[in-house]
Amino acid sequence: MSTQLSSIISRPLAIQSKGFVVTRVQGFFHPRTASGRASLLPNPPWHYSGDLLTVEYRTDPARVADLLPEPLELVDDDPGAVAFIWADWQSTAADNAQLLDPVLGQYKEAFVVVRCKLGERVFSRCVFIWVDTDFAIARGIHQGYPKKLGSIYQTRPHPYGPAPRVEAGGRFGASLAAADRRLAEARITLTEPAANNGFVNGHPMAHSRYVNAIDRPGEYSLDEIISTGAASFEGGTPWKATIDTFNLYESPTEELHLIEPQEFIGAYYQQVGVEWNGGTVIHSNAVAAPMIAAR
Amino acid sequence: MSTQLSSIISRPLAIQSKGFVVTRVQGFFHPRTASGRASLLPNPPWHYSGDLLTVEYRTDPARVADLLPEPLELVDDDPGAVAFIWADWQSTAADNAQLLDPVLGQYKEAFVVVRCKLGERVFSRCVFIWVDTDFAIARGIHQGYPKKLGSIYQTRPHPYGPAPRVEAGGRFGASLAAADRRLAEARITLTEPAANNGFVNGHPMAHSRYVNAIDRPGEYSLDEIISTGAASFEGGTPWKATIDTFNLYESPTEELHLIEPQEFIGAYYQQVGVEWNGGTVIHSNAVAAPMIAAR
Amino acid sequence: MSTQLSSIISRPLAIQSKGFVVTRVQGFFHPRTASGRASLLPNPPWHYSGDLLTVEYRTDPARVADLLPEPLELVDDDPGAVAFIWADWQSTAADNAQLLDPVLGQYKEAFVVVRCKLGERVFSRCVFIWVDTDFAIARGIHQGYPKKLGSIYQTRPHPYGPAPRVEAGGRFGASLAAADRRLAEARITLTEPAANNGFVNGHPMAHSRYVNAIDRPGEYSLDEIISTGAASFEGGTPWKATIDTFNLYESPTEELHLIEPQEFIGAYYQQVGVEWNGGTVIHSNAVAAPMIAAR
Amino acid sequence: MSTQLSSIISRPLAIQSKGFVVTRVQGFFHPRTASGRASLLPNPPWHYSGDLLTVEYRTDPARVADLLPEPLELVDDDPGAVAFIWADWQSTAADNAQLLDPVLGQYKEAFVVVRCKLGERVFSRCVFIWVDTDFAIARGIHQGYPKKLGSIYQTRPHPYGPAPRVEAGGRFGASLAAADRRLAEARITLTEPAANNGFVNGHPMAHSRYVNAIDRPGEYSLDEIISTGAASFEGGTPWKATIDTFNLYESPTEELHLIEPQEFIGAYYQQVGVEWNGGTVIHSNAVAAPMIAAR
Repeated sequence: MSTQLSSIISRPLAIQSKGFVVTRVQGFFHPRTASGRASLLPNPPWHYSGDLLTVEYRTDPARVADLLPEPLELVDDDPGAVAFIWADWQSTAADNAQLLDPVLGQYKEAFVVVRCKLGERVFSRCVFIWVDTDFAIARGIHQGYPKKLGSIYQTRPHPYGPAPRVEAGGRFGASLAAADRRLAEARITLTEPAANNGFVNGHPMAHSRYVNAIDRPGEYSLDEIISTGAASFEGGTPWKATIDTFNLYESPTEELHLIEPQEFIGAYYQQVGVEWNGGTVIHSNAVAAPMIAAR
Repeated sequence: MSTQLSSIISRPLAIQSKGFVVTRVQGFFHPRTASGRASLLPNPPWHYSGDLLTVEYRTDPARVADLLPEPLELVDDDPGAVAFIWADWQSTAADNAQLLDPVLGQYKEAFVVVRCKLGERVFSRCVFIWVDTDFAIARGIHQGYPKKLGSIYQTRPHPYGPAPRVEAGGRFGASLAAADRRLAEARITLTEPAANNGFVNGHPMAHSRYVNAIDRPGEYSLDEIISTGAASFEGGTPWKATIDTFNLYESPTEELHLIEPQEFIGAYYQQVGVEWNGGTVIHSNAVAAPMIAAR
Repeated sequence: MSTQLSSIISRPLAIQSKGFVVTRVQGFFHPRTASGRASLLPNPPWHYSGDLLTVEYRTDPARVADLLPEPLELVDDDPGAVAFIWADWQSTAADNAQLLDPVLGQYKEAFVVVRCKLGERVFSRCVFIWVDTDFAIARGIHQGYPKKLGSIYQTRPHPYGPAPRVEAGGRFGASLAAADRRLAEARITLTEPAANNGFVNGHPMAHSRYVNAIDRPGEYSLDEIISTGAASFEGGTPWKATIDTFNLYESPTEELHLIEPQEFIGAYYQQVGVEWNGGTVIHSNAVAAPMIAAR
Repeated sequence: MSTQLSSIISRPLAIQSKGFVVTRVQGFFHPRTASGRASLLPNPPWHYSGDLLTVEYRTDPARVADLLPEPLELVDDDPGAVAFIWADWQSTAADNAQLLDPVLGQYKEAFVVVRCKLGERVFSRCVFIWVDTDFAIARGIHQGYPKKLGSIYQTRPHPYGPAPRVEAGGRFGASLAAADRRLAEARITLTEPAANNGFVNGHPMAHSRYVNAIDRPGEYSLDEIISTGAASFEGGTPWKATIDTFNLYESPTEELHLIEPQEFIGAYYQQVGVEWNGGTVIHSNAVAAPMIAAR
C-alpha cells in the first residue's frame, strides 16, 4: 500500500486583511469559528452510556457481499452473519456538558453490522445505520458510519413498575422507522447470562470515509477505509434472549428487505459504558487530483 | 496553486471472494450498496422550488473575519455585510420521485451568508446553516454548507384566506431554533418590487470541505475550498420589505449573537426555481499523508 | 329532544383568600390563567389558508356504519362514499399573531370523511384524522374532530422550478404516518377544472364531543353531537384529477385498512380560505349525573 | 354540593339502517369504532415506570392564586410553594403492548404543581404541563392535566459510563422547550437519601375538566373539578439534591416567568412505579343547558 503524499505541510499562520486579523478558525466539526464554540462536535474522546439490544441472524452471503466495497471481502467463516442492533445512548465529551443539557447528548440508533476481511484480518462493518440527532450524524461522518435520520424506540429497563428489569423473563421491544415508514422491529425475552454480546459486532470496525469530487461525477476527493473501535469499555453481564418477533419491512429508499434472515442465531442485551477516541487508516484508494479552477 | 496528485488512478474492478462476486458498490452518498437504491442522495443535478426571505445588515467586520479560514479574506467594500436567509424548499432529482413522496424532498433552512475574497475574486460564503432533514445535511456535506439540524418556520404566501400574497403589504414571519432554543426570528412587510434579492448572497459560493484525519488530532485528510452556485435559475420579481422585527438569541452552542446587526441594510422576498449541479475546487490545502496501519 | 338543564346558572365572582384575590381564570383552552395568555388556543373565530388534496372512493357501507355512533345512520344514497383528504394549513386568530410566528399556526392534516344522517338531515362526519401540532389537537377537542398526531406531507404548488403549478398536468403526492408507520399515500394528476371539490365533505359536519366520567367506567360526563362548518369560505377553482396511486396500510392501532376502496370516485385539488366560528348542538345523550365525592 | 342531573339514562341499543346494523362504537377515547382498536387510549388502569426530577421553590402567592379557578383557594400554609417536575415515563395498559412497541408508550413531561384547597381539604394541582406524545395529551384530557406539546429532556441514570448513578454526587440535568423556545432548565446534584420526594405534589390532585359550549362563547358544556391520584405506587429511595441551575424563560405564549422563584426549597430525585385508575368528582359548576338546534 503506497501513500499519496509524502509529508504533512503545515498551514499558514493567520494573515492580515485591511487591519482585521483573519483568525485561524477552530472547531472539531463545522461550523468552524474563531472560538470553536459553534462546532457541532466537541473534541474527542467521546464517552457513552447505553443499552444494546442485538439480534443476530444469517442472511444470504451474496447480499452481504453486495454491501462491501473492494478490497473488502467476505469472511471465510459464517459470511452471511448479520447483527441488527438497537442502542439507546447518552454521550458526552470530557466536560460532561452534553450529559447535563441532554438535548445535546442523548440519542438513539439502530444499525446493521456484518463482518468482512481486508487481507487476512477480520473486521466488523456497519453497513446501515439510523440515528435521531445531528451530532450523531456528524460523528458518523468522522467515524465512517453511513448514518441517516430515523425514529428509534427501545424498551428501557427500570427498577419499578411495568418496565422490565435486566433479568430472566425481562421483555424488551424495539422499532426503527425512517421517512415515515417502519423499517424494522424486534421483541426479545431475556433468558440467561451469556458469555458475550454476540460475535458479529465484536471486531474492530472497518469503515469507509469518502468525499465525492465536487467537479467530476463518479470520482472521489477522499476514499479511505479506517479501522476504529472503543478506546475503553465497561459493561454489565450480557444476557441471552429469545427472539419473539423480528420483522424487516421494504421501503422504496432502503434495502433491509434484501438482507432478510434465513436463520436466527440469537439475541442479546447488555448495558455498557464506552469511550471512543479515533482510529487508523487501513486502506486508501487513489483519488482524483484536485484541479484548481483558474481564478 | 499546486496540486497534490498528478493523476486519476482508476479503481480496481470487482473481485472474487470464495465464489461470491464482491460487487462494486454504488450510490452518490452513503450507504453505498450494489444497487445504489439506499443512497441518502440521488445523483445530481438537484432541482429546487422555494421561497427566500432575506434580511441584510452590517455587523462588526472583525466578527465576519472570525468566520473565514485562511486564505479567505474580508472583502474591501462593505466587509461587515451579512445576509440572514430563510428558505422553504421542495427539492428533487431528475425523476421527480422526491416531489411526489414529499417527505423525501421538502425541507426548510435558515442560513447566514457573508462575503469574502480569495485573491482578488469575491465570493459569498455560508458561515452558519440549519436544515430540518437528513438529505439536506448530506447535500451540505457535499456542497460545503456547515449544516446542523434546526426547526425552521416561515410564513407561506397563499392566494386565499389570511396568509399573505406576494404583494405590497404582505407580511411574512420566520423563526429558527436548534437544540430546543430559539436562535433567530424576523418579520418583514413587502413594500415594492426590487432590482435584486440582496447582494450578499449574490456571488458564487466559496465553501470549505474538510475531513479530520482519523488518526492525528488537528490534521486533515481533506481540506479544500470549492466554488459552487446555481447551474440554472428562474425566479419571480424580488420584493423589497421593511424589517419589522429581527432578533438573534444567544445559545451555549451557537455564535449568532456575535454577528449582531449594527445597521440594517434591507429585507427581500423572492420565489425561485434553482438547479444545482456541482462546482469547482478553488483552493486545496496540503493534508496529512495517510499512514496506513500495519495489518 | 329534551334538554337536561333548565337554565344557565352564573358562576360566582372572584372570592378572597387570605388577602389574595383569587382571580377568575381566563383563556379559551387550558391552561387557564388570570391573563389567559398561556391558553393553547386563542378565542375563535379562527382563520385558515390552505390546500386540499381529496381522493373520493366507495368502501363497504357496513364499514362506514361501523364508525357511526347512534343515533347517526347511514345515508340512503351512496352510503359507502368516503373522502380521504390531505390539507396543508396556515391558521390564525384575529390578530394574525400565529401567521407571523408560524410555529404557532402552520400545521398539516390528513382525515377521512363519510356522510351520515340524523333524522332526515344529511351531514358529513370526520371519522379519522391526524394532525402535526398540539393547537390543532386542541381545536379538535372543541370541534369534535378525533385527532391523533401524525406526520403528514403534501406536494405544494409553486410558480417556479420543479414543483407543480395548479394547472392541467400538475402532479401532487401526499403521505400520512403515525406511530412510525406509514398509513396512507396518494398521487394525483390534475386534469381539468371541476364544479366542486368532491361531495362527501360538502355537508355541515356532525361531530361527537364526549368526556368519559372520571369515576364510572363506560359512562360519560358529556356526550353530544354538534354540527359545525365554515363560517365563511373563499377558494380557487377546484380541479379534477386522476388517481395515480392510493394506498392504505394496516397498523396495529389503526383501522384504515377496514375502509379500503372498492371503487374510486375521483380526486380533487383546491386552494381555499376558511373561517371557523362555532357550531350548534344537534343531539345530546343523557349522561351520568355527577356524584360529588364527600370531602 | 348538589348534583345537576338526577339519574343515569341508559343509551339506546344499536339500531337498523337499510339493512346495515349501526353498531355501538367502542373505545375509551376517540376515534371510536365498532372494534375500539383505533382508540388513542386503551382502557385504564394505566401503568407507569419512570424517573422524577423535582425542584421545589416559593414564588409570590398572588401568582399561584392567579392560576386557581374558583372555588379553589390558596392553602394557608406556604401558599407560594411550587414544584417544577420533569418525568421520563414508560407507560402501558394491562396487556403491556405499549411497553413492547415503545413508540406507543414512552413519553417525557415537565409540569408545574401548586397546592390549593377546596373547602378545608388540601389538594395538589398541576397548573402547567408539557408532554411529547398524543396519547399523553389524550390522557390529560381525561385526567384534567392542561397539556401542551413540548420537547423535554432529562439525564438518565445508568450503571456504566459517564451517565450518573442514583447515588450521592450523581448529577442530572433537564430542559423544557415548546414552540421552539426553551422554557425551563435545571441541574441538580444528589446529596443524600430523603424522607420524601417533596411535599407540593404529595396530595391528591384537584384538576379541572371543562368543555366550551360549541354555541355560546364563554359558557361551558362541562365544568367540573375532579380529584385523582395514583391507585398504587412503589418507588426507590427519594434523594435530596442541590439545585445547581434553575432557569425559567419568558415566551409570548407562556407564563412561567410569572411564577419565578423567590426562594428555593429543595430538589429531589426518585424512580417510581405507578398505577392510575380513575378519580372522583369533587365539584361541579352549573353549565349551559344544551340548546338543541332545530333540524
